[in-house]
Amino acid sequence: MTLDIVVLPGDGVGPEVTDEAVRVLDWFVAKRGVPLRMTRHLFGSASWATQGTTMPDATWEAIMAADALLFGAVGSLDQKQIPAEERRKGSLLRMRKGLDVFANLRPVRAWPALAESSPFKTRTVAGADLIFVRELTAGMYFGTPRGIETQADGTRRGVNTHTYTEAEIARVARFALGLARTRRNHLTSVDKANVMEAGALWREVVTAIHAAEFPDVTLEHMLADNCALQLGRAPTRFDVIVTDNLFGDLLSDCAGAINGSLGMLPSAALSAPDANGRRRALYEPIHGSAPDIAGKGIANPLGAILSAALLLRWTAQAPAEADRLETAVEAALAAGARTADIALPGEAVLSTRGMADAVIAALDAA
Amino acid sequence: MTLDIVVLPGDGVGPEVTDEAVRVLDWFVAKRGVPLRMTRHLFGSASWATQGTTMPDATWEAIMAADALLFGAVGSLDQKQIPAEERRKGSLLRMRKGLDVFANLRPVRAWPALAESSPFKTRTVAGADLIFVRELTAGMYFGTPRGIETQADGTRRGVNTHTYTEAEIARVARFALGLARTRRNHLTSVDKANVMEAGALWREVVTAIHAAEFPDVTLEHMLADNCALQLGRAPTRFDVIVTDNLFGDLLSDCAGAINGSLGMLPSAALSAPDANGRRRALYEPIHGSAPDIAGKGIANPLGAILSAALLLRWTAQAPAEADRLETAVEAALAAGARTADIALPGEAVLSTRGMADAVIAALDAA
Ligand SMILES: CC(C)[C@H](C(=O)O)[C@@H](O)C(=O)O
Ligand SMILES: CC(C)[C@H](C(=O)O)[C@@H](O)C(=O)O
Repeated sequence: MTLDIVVLPGDGVGPEVTDEAVRVLDWFVAKRGVPLRMTRHLFGSASWATQGTTMPDATWEAIMAADALLFGAVGSLDQKQIPAEERRKGSLLRMRKGLDVFANLRPVRAWPALAESSPFKTRTVAGADLIFVRELTAGMYFGTPRGIETQADGTRRGVNTHTYTEAEIARVARFALGLARTRRNHLTSVDKANVMEAGALWREVVTAIHAAEFPDVTLEHMLADNCALQLGRAPTRFDVIVTDNLFGDLLSDCAGAINGSLGMLPSAALSAPDANGRRRALYEPIHGSAPDIAGKGIANPLGAILSAALLLRWTAQAPAEADRLETAVEAALAAGARTADIALPGEAVLSTRGMADAVIAALDAA
Repeated sequence: MTLDIVVLPGDGVGPEVTDEAVRVLDWFVAKRGVPLRMTRHLFGSASWATQGTTMPDATWEAIMAADALLFGAVGSLDQKQIPAEERRKGSLLRMRKGLDVFANLRPVRAWPALAESSPFKTRTVAGADLIFVRELTAGMYFGTPRGIETQADGTRRGVNTHTYTEAEIARVARFALGLARTRRNHLTSVDKANVMEAGALWREVVTAIHAAEFPDVTLEHMLADNCALQLGRAPTRFDVIVTDNLFGDLLSDCAGAINGSLGMLPSAALSAPDANGRRRALYEPIHGSAPDIAGKGIANPLGAILSAALLLRWTAQAPAEADRLETAVEAALAAGARTADIALPGEAVLSTRGMADAVIAALDAA
């Protein structure tokens, strides 16, 4: 059965890096027989310019019907020109919620070849290999009431609401505990239970699911501020980290500093499995649209290419092919392939296309 | 006029490090004529054990009447034994709110003497010298509605509310912009305006105050997740960072990794000035009670001692004395004084008392 992959290049550097991820996936279709059919769809600012909407109906229908999305980035310099309503229609948050992809995987590893360009000492980050499971469809991003209200004295007040139900916490906790079992069997659950009641409930539910269903996994609880510190002090102490939507946003960028560039970081967002055990999925490099370098052909495609590896693992269910791709990335880096964001001063720099060529060459050579 | 300083050693390592900060301030009273009268008061777990309350009335009255508080830490291993109501009475949050100390200063600098023990490469952090102005009396910490509610189906939902009024944003923005003028004239304002309406209002108000009253200061806006990354990638790019209560909590710990230990970090929380231009103030090392090492005499007192330097600067209004103390800390570190948290393997380690002795010796020698 061929898997239907909707490709959404989007804005900024999105098209450039997504093209390379597609090219790499084409290699797996042609050379390894991975059954993918990839179809590009228009959305975002590009679609607004030509279609008068950030989310054509045909695109939304394709998204909802797809086995997975391969997403580039959203957000452009002239986004302000687009009415708020239209921005929402084509937004990442609407897709995440629409697909109910609650489990956002953000793996972070210290690539040995990048030890020199990391802002950290090698002794701090060598061997770091952690993965965030960020809850992606609730919390501060979606809570109501929200908005800007006018008070009795005529001045304004901004309001956002952070909420989690037991069910929302339980499903992401189960996912993270299950994932820990496939790795080093260690889960860190992160909250601000000392300040937030919603954090206290988070901690209670994670503790209960762990005790009842995953007592073999080592579970620790950590306050979010301490986690921010420990990610810088001792990132190798982490295996799987589960946390809420907002803390996950900040803490995964904290950890992103390990390689000195967000350009290296992939992500996958997964729904609950359906009756056939299949999860809907959204794959996305976490760097965003980077409008300042868009169109120059210099963006690092490895975040997108490593997102394609996650697609091979989670949607194509071909873990050996995912490993093959990650090994090829490692080989390309080890051979000295660098885009500008990960190069040391004086090092030769590849274009977006050139970096993908290096990965494909490593795949061919393996 | 003698300044009335209420000393609140509190729990865990609080008493150990506070004793040393008091000893250092005694030096400034005796040798430099700084007019301070320091009085210890009971609160927290120690007070609960002997007085049956975490906050005796006499302590609360002294707090409200003081020129400044010198605070150790709150929170002990057996805190769970204390009823929630009593925990709240003696809590840091109640003091912050009661004193209306909305501007929380958290300076972070890369101490040259600690370059080797920093988790970061020296080229990343050398010269870093930044200061957070964290809003401390609003936002997620205090917003209502909050709590754990039972839903129609009998399961529970945790709720916390993040709110900021224009006035709350304006006063912290003014403080931060004014502070930037006394430093390198650069302010980074941090929010999640792309996701939170309260963040959009934050950005709008900061922009307006800047344009109307501080156009000479360079202002940039940054998303909180990007700030977490940049603190790891390029901490030297920051001067003053203003942000809300919750982001400030996480991001200042992120930056804390620069020295590898929270033990080095001081803080000051300041109210608006009264009619005589005097601000209420709460000085506190940011490391917390660290119950695992309490009572061993090994905690790093420099966070508390550097908090005393902030007291000299902001409450005693003796900037030259504050500089003198910070220079003495630098000299002690340069001479090799290390507590366990900042020592490299094999380096000689001082006790809490020994480190304070080294600072006092440096003061005497200067
Ligand atoms: C673009 C933005 C809405 C998004 C988020 O905050 O979730 C991004 O920062 C991310 O982490 O995927
Ligand atoms: C102890 C805790 C309530 C406090 C906070 O979250 O503000 C602490 O982490 C801090 O940063 O001062």
